[in-house]
Amino acid sequence: MIKTNLFQFNRIAQDKRARAGVFTTPHGDLLTPVFAPVGTQATVKAVSPDQLRATGASLVLSNTYHLYLRPGADLVAEMGGLHRFMQWDGPMLTDSGGFQVFSLADMRKIDADGVTFKSHIDGSTHRFTPEKAVQIQEDLGADIIMAFDECAPPYDREYNQRAVARTHAWAERCHTAQSRRDQALFGIVQGGVFPDLREQSAEFISALGFPGHAVGGLSVGETKAEMHAMIEVVDTILPEDKPRYLMGVGSPEDLIHCIRRGIDIFDCVLPTRLARHQAAMTRTGRINLMNAANAHDPRPIDEACACYTCRHFTRAYLRHLIVAKEMLAATLISIHNIHTLVSLMNDAREAIIAGQFDHFADTFLTNYTPQAKTS
Amino acid sequence: MIKTNLFQFNRIAQDKRARAGVFTTPHGDLLTPVFAPVGTQATVKAVSPDQLRATGASLVLSNTYHLYLRPGADLVAEMGGLHRFMQWDGPMLTDSGGFQVFSLADMRKIDADGVTFKSHIDGSTHRFTPEKAVQIQEDLGADIIMAFDECAPPYDREYNQRAVARTHAWAERCHTAQSRRDQALFGIVQGGVFPDLREQSAEFISALGFPGHAVGGLSVGETKAEMHAMIEVVDTILPEDKPRYLMGVGSPEDLIHCIRRGIDIFDCVLPTRLARHQAAMTRTGRINLMNAANAHDPRPIDEACACYTCRHFTRAYLRHLIVAKEMLAATLISIHNIHTLVSLMNDAREAIIAGQFDHFADTFLTNYTPQAKTS
Repeated sequence: MIKTNLFQFNRIAQDKRARAGVFTTPHGDLLTPVFAPVGTQATVKAVSPDQLRATGASLVLSNTYHLYLRPGADLVAEMGGLHRFMQWDGPMLTDSGGFQVFSLADMRKIDADGVTFKSHIDGSTHRFTPEKAVQIQEDLGADIIMAFDECAPPYDREYNQRAVARTHAWAERCHTAQSRRDQALFGIVQGGVFPDLREQSAEFISALGFPGHAVGGLSVGETKAEMHAMIEVVDTILPEDKPRYLMGVGSPEDLIHCIRRGIDIFDCVLPTRLARHQAAMTRTGRINLMNAANAHDPRPIDEACACYTCRHFTRAYLRHLIVAKEMLAATLISIHNIHTLVSLMNDAREAIIAGQFDHFADTFLTNYTPQAKTS
Repeated sequence: MIKTNLFQFNRIAQDKRARAGVFTTPHGDLLTPVFAPVGTQATVKAVSPDQLRATGASLVLSNTYHLYLRPGADLVAEMGGLHRFMQWDGPMLTDSGGFQVFSLADMRKIDADGVTFKSHIDGSTHRFTPEKAVQIQEDLGADIIMAFDECAPPYDREYNQRAVARTHAWAERCHTAQSRRDQALFGIVQGGVFPDLREQSAEFISALGFPGHAVGGLSVGETKAEMHAMIEVVDTILPEDKPRYLMGVGSPEDLIHCIRRGIDIFDCVLPTRLARHQAAMTRTGRINLMNAANAHDPRPIDEACACYTCRHFTRAYLRHLIVAKEMLAATLISIHNIHTLVSLMNDAREAIIAGQFDHFADTFLTNYTPQAKTS
């Protein structure tokens, strides 16, 4: 375990379970709650770093599995690390590759020591162990890195018991393997939808002394009520003076529900994936910009939005770009969607600091119409 | 014919036949020689207006044929015109739709009054006449608009004789049809590779009193020597106090050769099309960024280049984006390629003003290796 003072987490306000904080990293302070857009392959799809910065985004996630396969963590290291390679000079986070590897289904085989898997790109065989996952993430050089874990199907109790045991053993090995002092290694809590397993996992992982903790294995098929219940279980156990990161969650309503339950950090492909499927995210719900109703609409996506897209472009223009299959559509809608989540986080933070988070959340949830996932 | 003082062309320097000028338009001054990137469907592909501005580009071309079909010139007019629709507040130029319509081959039928054609999108039947081409361009609202012309295969003398006669009759009708005072209507010279037809066309078009003139029907299959010879013919006839626009030409060596022969304005899809095919344009030739040689290359495309892409990104990163099929590749390479042509034009202008254009052009052409077209 690396002892360091780099990664201070100061809770500057708490409103019931909702927290507003400052998490110090080598590439700048993260004001929490914070939403991280995803740059799977060392780029947030269709968005340049300067456009991303202009959305207000502060933290970017990249995927260890993808970068390991292409272009290779050694190449990224040779180019001075991920920040320099992709020219994002703010805080970055990499996942451990675990989730992607386990998602390969038939193309991977798990044992106590690690996972052997086939590349989705060329079918070549590779192996991740906890030590390898840490080594790759040290080569990439993100500010926040993740322990190698096993994400089990949420309703399979026996599988989750085994996965929790393995995740714990691997967390300890990652802990031991870490050699860089300028990266915060987060432990991950697993346990499916089973409160006792979540409790056991939160207690074990908390005891290892990580500078931050993640909740994994949620938003993978369970109900919203189950997701909320699991977060409530771990919230009471994880140390309050360290940041909590809910992996892979990014719908506006989920963000608000989970901030209310003590989560500080989120990431999700949703804003950029929806953008490539013509859906704009707003404070009141989603808009399918392909709809004919937008063809002659001179309004921006959201008249209250301050993003580059809304300050400049009409729905009619965005719909034209979509119909004409112009790449700029994905860029402009991605910019808007990321800004929507980033500004929602900023407003949530202000509400927590003002001691009015409940009112903020209730008002938001009353006005918001969740929709069926379009992707 | 609209008489207006809006479109002043001041030649501030001339070095043999090469000219440096200022062309005043309602959306700002164009410093000539100038290269216009092409925004076929109301967007320069993969580049946002602010990114485009940062390349130094001053003039943008859009295509009447494409915008007429989609989203429709009436919609663009309803949205306040093309500048506002696509958020380009600098000078714009639209072509007449003639070149695209004639390129439809079997899908169009020409008569003395105009052209009936089928949409490449849905096969629906449409008709362009000189009056219609002006009306559409008035709806779009570019600063510079073009007369409706017929572009014939370069080596067919009989066809070119008919096309020149038709182009002249249509130029007069466009002249008469123009109703807006804030657009400069340019006449177009045709004539294939036949000096006498070019001469006849330049004389006829010049006599109509347009505020600027274009040379059409070049870079369509003839040799470079023939292209240069045709420009030399019209250079001696077109009035020197009005700008000359060579349509559809944009390779660096062609720009230099044609500035030397008295051309002021150029447009071409080349920089953005090459970018989408992984080719970077430099002052010395093209680089295929997909080449394995770039995989570990920490240099920018061009160490002397000041564009956003070269100030930030390595060839290794650009190649990674290409291999990973990330949209950002097209954006970053397009930014670089446009900047390369824009900065080449700026340097050519400085050389003309300094009375050293021959030296500049000779040095450039000595160092430049033209390549086979990759698109």
